[in-house]
Amino acid sequence: MTARVRASFERQAMMSTLGIRLAAVERGRVELVMDHDDRFTQQHGFVHAGAIAAALDSACGYAAFSVMPPEAAVLTASYTINLLAPAAGQRFVMTAEVVRAGRTLVVCRGEATTEGATKPFAVMQSTLSAVYDRPGITH
Amino acid sequence: MTARVRASFERQAMMSTLGIRLAAVERGRVELVMDHDDRFTQQHGFVHAGAIAAALDSACGYAAFSVMPPEAAVLTASYTINLLAPAAGQRFVMTAEVVRAGRTLVVCRGEATTEGATKPFAVMQSTLSAVYDRPGITH
Amino acid sequence: MTARVRASFERQAMMSTLGIRLAAVERGRVELVMDHDDRFTQQHGFVHAGAIAAALDSACGYAAFSVMPPEAAVLTASYTINLLAPAAGQRFVMTAEVVRAGRTLVVCRGEATTEGATKPFAVMQSTLSAVYDRPGITH
Amino acid sequence: MTARVRASFERQAMMSTLGIRLAAVERGRVELVMDHDDRFTQQHGFVHAGAIAAALDSACGYAAFSVMPPEAAVLTASYTINLLAPAAGQRFVMTAEVVRAGRTLVVCRGEATTEGATKPFAVMQSTLSAVYDRPGITH
Repeated sequence: MTARVRASFERQAMMSTLGIRLAAVERGRVELVMDHDDRFTQQHGFVHAGAIAAALDSACGYAAFSVMPPEAAVLTASYTINLLAPAAGQRFVMTAEVVRAGRTLVVCRGEATTEGATKPFAVMQSTLSAVYDRPGITH
Repeated sequence: MTARVRASFERQAMMSTLGIRLAAVERGRVELVMDHDDRFTQQHGFVHAGAIAAALDSACGYAAFSVMPPEAAVLTASYTINLLAPAAGQRFVMTAEVVRAGRTLVVCRGEATTEGATKPFAVMQSTLSAVYDRPGITH
Repeated sequence: MTARVRASFERQAMMSTLGIRLAAVERGRVELVMDHDDRFTQQHGFVHAGAIAAALDSACGYAAFSVMPPEAAVLTASYTINLLAPAAGQRFVMTAEVVRAGRTLVVCRGEATTEGATKPFAVMQSTLSAVYDRPGITH
Repeated sequence: MTARVRASFERQAMMSTLGIRLAAVERGRVELVMDHDDRFTQQHGFVHAGAIAAALDSACGYAAFSVMPPEAAVLTASYTINLLAPAAGQRFVMTAEVVRAGRTLVVCRGEATTEGATKPFAVMQSTLSAVYDRPGITH
């Protein structure tokens, strides 16, 4: 399972472009790490919510993928993100956990925290689809 | 108003990094354009939902900003995105409109469409905060 | 299709308990109507958001159901509601439309408006599942 | 604080109509309880998602209210609910916790569980507004 998650993660150009790394994978739980990068800031100099959302979305996606059957591919159906505070600091940790997994839908929750902080600065509730036998969609 | 929107947009490094341009601005409505770029793809070769979400989030943010008083800054409080189909194609158009504006909260809806297509491949419902007099947060 | 929608609607005790009626049904679009009722108010005397959400959820659910194959049942997977203003007035109209329909997921948007008003006081973005052959789940 | 929460809860006709009780209140955390009632079912005989959403919305609202200043009133700005399984069983427990509280916005997460079960059948992520000095809106 871990090998499947790592192999899929490495095929996402967006993750390497944003400098997001896979820090931990277990069944139903994934942790990603991302550093501050001036290329991905918003107008106030903090990392753009878009980069944080992309990281949280991937964390939820791989947490869901980690509980899916080997023949399934994962697609995000929808997510809701609350941005609680700016992404201030040098390093951000995104953790995601599966809340409940059905055969075709998996629901996850994720949190983004500045390294060392106790409270998240963003939280996500995400709905992922398990896709089977769809041409062009591999895991 | 248009000048305020354009000036704020140009201070977002994330927008130029992702190649997102401001295509149209009017009171309560904003249109952004983005081209396919291999650096921002997911594991199936389509543009990553994270890039689309960042563009839709900005479209909603600037639509909200366009109806706020000149002294307000805008922050995304939360959004929900539904990803209806992969971001397939060469050019994507993100449009956002204000649904209703209060003094401190503005709600917008956005759609992402492949240029020339009739149905959106992603839709967003977004809640934006108008921020007044917060140190470090300018428009 | 209209007959299937009406028959399913009439089996929902919650709709008759809340006094919600089916006002219009066409393929991909449903309109429900509900009157102010003191039994369903919140602490400020307006109709509770829970009643409005139940009505909007049903409107989205039946809009989705109206485009599904006859053998499918519909379940709400998730929705996001924004409450823009109190539900003030005597009669409320909930309209929902399908944004895009896949085989297993349908996305709808809904609006709740006080009769005669131009702007909605609540908006919903909803993800519905088409369920096939699940014991105990009929349409 | 507990007295303020209880007094406000008792002014919501919707809660007594649905048979929802306040089971526990502490700073930043609220627990509500609701029994199965045939008047509030959907077409498959389970309690309607609208009743569950109303209960979870109230749980999040009072969790937020419990950390607000005494002069604030609370309004739900938006929420996202995922319905993971039908509301099967005789008694349902809704718990909500504050994730982070700002001066005007409070974000909460809630879970609905059948009494005795370990996994939630519904989860909510909610954005609440603290309202000050708005005519007609009291706590």
